[in-house]
Amino acid sequence: MLLEKIQHPDDLKGLSMEELQNLVNETRETLLRKISHHGGHNGPNLGMVEMTVALHYVFNSPIDQLIFDVSHQTYIHKMLTGRAEAFLSPEHYDDVSGYTNPKESTHDLFTIGHTSTSLSLANGVAKARDLKNEKNNVIAVIGDGSLSGGLAYEGLNNIVEQGTNTIVIVNDNDQSIAENFGGIYKNLKELRETNGQAKNNFFEALGFEYHYLEEGNELTALIDLFESVKDKKIPVLLHIHTTKGKGFKFAEENREKFHAGGPFSLTTGDYLNSSSQKETYNSITTDFLMRKMQADPKVIAVNAGTPMLLFNKEQREKVGKQFVDVGIAEEHAATMTAGLAKNGAKPIWAVFSTFMQRSYDQISHDLALNDLPGTILVYGASVHGMNDESHLGIFDIPFLSHIPNIVYLAPTTKEEYLAMLDWSIEQNEHPVAIRVPVGSVKETGIKDQTNYAQYFKNHVTKEGSQVALLGLGNFYSLAEDIALDLETEHNINATIINPKFISGLDTVLLDDLVKNHKLVVTLEDGVLDGGYGQTVAGYLGNKNVKIQTYGLEKTFHDRYSASELLSENGLTKNNIVKNILNSL
Amino acid sequence: MLLEKIQHPDDLKGLSMEELQNLVNETRETLLRKISHHGGHNGPNLGMVEMTVALHYVFNSPIDQLIFDVSHQTYIHKMLTGRAEAFLSPEHYDDVSGYTNPKESTHDLFTIGHTSTSLSLANGVAKARDLKNEKNNVIAVIGDGSLSGGLAYEGLNNIVEQGTNTIVIVNDNDQSIAENFGGIYKNLKELRETNGQAKNNFFEALGFEYHYLEEGNELTALIDLFESVKDKKIPVLLHIHTTKGKGFKFAEENREKFHAGGPFSLTTGDYLNSSSQKETYNSITTDFLMRKMQADPKVIAVNAGTPMLLFNKEQREKVGKQFVDVGIAEEHAATMTAGLAKNGAKPIWAVFSTFMQRSYDQISHDLALNDLPGTILVYGASVHGMNDESHLGIFDIPFLSHIPNIVYLAPTTKEEYLAMLDWSIEQNEHPVAIRVPVGSVKETGIKDQTNYAQYFKNHVTKEGSQVALLGLGNFYSLAEDIALDLETEHNINATIINPKFISGLDTVLLDDLVKNHKLVVTLEDGVLDGGYGQTVAGYLGNKNVKIQTYGLEKTFHDRYSASELLSENGLTKNNIVKNILNSL
Repeated sequence: MLLEKIQHPDDLKGLSMEELQNLVNETRETLLRKISHHGGHNGPNLGMVEMTVALHYVFNSPIDQLIFDVSHQTYIHKMLTGRAEAFLSPEHYDDVSGYTNPKESTHDLFTIGHTSTSLSLANGVAKARDLKNEKNNVIAVIGDGSLSGGLAYEGLNNIVEQGTNTIVIVNDNDQSIAENFGGIYKNLKELRETNGQAKNNFFEALGFEYHYLEEGNELTALIDLFESVKDKKIPVLLHIHTTKGKGFKFAEENREKFHAGGPFSLTTGDYLNSSSQKETYNSITTDFLMRKMQADPKVIAVNAGTPMLLFNKEQREKVGKQFVDVGIAEEHAATMTAGLAKNGAKPIWAVFSTFMQRSYDQISHDLALNDLPGTILVYGASVHGMNDESHLGIFDIPFLSHIPNIVYLAPTTKEEYLAMLDWSIEQNEHPVAIRVPVGSVKETGIKDQTNYAQYFKNHVTKEGSQVALLGLGNFYSLAEDIALDLETEHNINATIINPKFISGLDTVLLDDLVKNHKLVVTLEDGVLDGGYGQTVAGYLGNKNVKIQTYGLEKTFHDRYSASELLSENGLTKNNIVKNILNSL
Repeated sequence: MLLEKIQHPDDLKGLSMEELQNLVNETRETLLRKISHHGGHNGPNLGMVEMTVALHYVFNSPIDQLIFDVSHQTYIHKMLTGRAEAFLSPEHYDDVSGYTNPKESTHDLFTIGHTSTSLSLANGVAKARDLKNEKNNVIAVIGDGSLSGGLAYEGLNNIVEQGTNTIVIVNDNDQSIAENFGGIYKNLKELRETNGQAKNNFFEALGFEYHYLEEGNELTALIDLFESVKDKKIPVLLHIHTTKGKGFKFAEENREKFHAGGPFSLTTGDYLNSSSQKETYNSITTDFLMRKMQADPKVIAVNAGTPMLLFNKEQREKVGKQFVDVGIAEEHAATMTAGLAKNGAKPIWAVFSTFMQRSYDQISHDLALNDLPGTILVYGASVHGMNDESHLGIFDIPFLSHIPNIVYLAPTTKEEYLAMLDWSIEQNEHPVAIRVPVGSVKETGIKDQTNYAQYFKNHVTKEGSQVALLGLGNFYSLAEDIALDLETEHNINATIINPKFISGLDTVLLDDLVKNHKLVVTLEDGVLDGGYGQTVAGYLGNKNVKIQTYGLEKTFHDRYSASELLSENGLTKNNIVKNILNSL
């Protein structure tokens, strides 16, 4: 097998065209074998096989510097840069991350997992090269989906302005995670349909030398194109049409389904273990919003490039104009939400915690400063969310809860969640964010009648003394576990509080607690620094009560086991009970 | 005077062309009279006189909805929507803010002070209109400078996608605050030079119906254009060439100087009280960076559209390629900084605290996750920074200090600042941010020899007992004042600590303090929630010591007096001394 002999991209240089084509076939087969067993970003990698081989054949990594946008399409790149074992041997499948990672290889310049960053990174890398008077090529590979992010546009602008060697490759497979949305995609379509000759050309308008390649899965065509632009002194843009899922018919036929996912059958194209019909917080949200939309044409859901969070394709067709996918453009989603709310619509913006990070100023300056009643649904904000260091959802509380006017809520059950969501959509006072619970659905069967316009009013679920436990959102059940242990094992009747509100304190309650409690314990499912517990500690610091705050260390935790990480951070019932007893 | 009779834009509808032209002249004269005495955004408003009159003549605000990007160009709009008095009567000059403000008028849809938001807001407003089946025009006015921000591109994309009435006006005066940078500006230039007929057209490429108007300061041409697109069912883009500073020759001739500024002489064009040669933290930075750059070609300063923060025009020419203005594109600035650092350059990104808000994910995901040694200089992070609610610099500590790997420093003197800056540029470990001091320069005359690679080591400047005062950055001198009062008036020998590090705690010191202190007091020049003091309180909460945390309430404070705001937030020596005495 040729692939087994490739330790470095230099090993490609001496291969014949026939051998290179064999390598293409081997890598695609290797890829299919791994992803069908292991899962991953399936379609994006299948489409990139030929391009990656051609890139490493023509350019000289790591002297020539390759930067892949999002970097979820770099499995072949990893195979060709000394990491083939992680794709050939099942026992080594987890040796590599799903993204580029400088800790794995010098051929990976950056850890990248969010979209639209590659061009700005390349612009910096190229500028540093120029300052050092070096001469290598800087190559950025960006998918068409990532072009919807404003940062990509800023990158394009500045690459042209800089004016020196930077090779921008637009890998156009006519698909984001789901369909593409936005004016740019009409132009990409025109360009594809005219073999790059359309009158209007977005890239030429910005000042790029532009090259179109229709056969983006043809090895020799790719090699010819790359050789023609290698070492150019000016920025060039290569618009290359590839097929997402190339070489696996089920993936070619259903590109949304095969963007990413777990193990699948090579013969039927079905995902294994995917037919769960169980209720989830996602499915609850979908059902609720569809009912709301039907009842009120002003209810509208907004999403930035991850529509399946709310609606599958069929559901999207059903809700029609009451759903907008703005492309991978969280900034726009946030600011558009402000515009919608201002003009009397009832917008709900659904966003993963990790991607919400792209919109701080839009939340602050557009939504919060204008104090507009939009709803943000924050998904995956938990230690039990995505666990790659580039996709953590645990920074949302410091990020969001200290922005003025934002009411940030943490439900603990289905009933609370739906009551909060309904209240938020109908209220007209403030921007409201809801930390969508992560984990299995908890149902009480009792309708939540809370008036959430009583801002920051906590719910005391069990009155006790000595110790008060504030269990925020996902960690409310941990508070219950601790209280039960304290009661049964140590005869301590702890107070249990469901704070419900993250972005403000129930100061009346806290003042009251001080009277018959020696210790207040806060539990939150996120980083400790800048979080909820520290705000409580700041408020109580000058009073006659001790405070223990529990949360995660401020680090980019990577591919962790949640239970181990919780344990390392002292977030276990036994540890907390021990600390409580020590403190009393 | 006609202007005095205009209470509502409807009052324009019956005027003849001659009267409208008289109104143009009156408003420009009124504008010049006010700004020459009061200061403000001079050039942008002078250029918008004719366009604003034409907009209100043709469209029907507030039924037709006008949204102005940044909204610093809305002085004429305010004059024509019931607020002329605030421009005619010096005693009413401060009745209006420098931006649109819904609290002032229903003709102002949003409070806006940051750039590139108008198109996304308009997209939301228009979508809500469509959901409600209403038919009004939605008009967004955006300057060419604001087009460099990625959010503007996301807005353009989505307006085209939506496909219904939205009138985008690009007010092209060929100038941002300073010069424009980026590929888009080459295209705008081509379009201006060809009367809109250039082969490449950025806006048409994105799918807009495009109209060019060369005479953007000609009232009748503007009226004709607006009437021709009013009530269109599809998005249109009007590219209108105006003259920044129109009608005041000094402003026309020096557009950067007259972007904004204090009172000036109408006869000489000189700013009053502007010739101060005193050393400031800005001038210190400029001098230091110019020396560093001369000594090391790898040192490079990055800025997003506010270059005068570091270098005036002459200085920019001098530093040449070692300075990059990326346009009003803070996201790109942050991510480019990561690229520069990765490839061996020594980047320093200078940014106002309020505008840094646009780049959370770029700081987190690109710079911090990759742990790259770029330097961020954070300007105006203080209660004494800009004081309009849309330009506050007081949220930086919760925003920045909880991102992993970021070393955020708070210098208290010139010597500390320069030592930190020099160390940061030369170190190779982490991203470092420095909170540039605000206020007059404090000089000790003694070189700071601190090794800042000893992360989070605080400096105990005075050892005492009972009370420990942690005075962060700008508020270190307040700690000194309090200590002096405690000593001289109350015979208490307080410990004074200069924390220097914002993003981490000196836990050895804090543990030690507990032994002979009853109270720890934190003082920070920013919002309290999510800030430094709360992190200290969280750490000390379970120990035998009380904590008092001082900072500002989490609110969008507006056009405040700093001393009053400090007093309202208990941030006075007398109040804090009183609280300390109560607590001991």
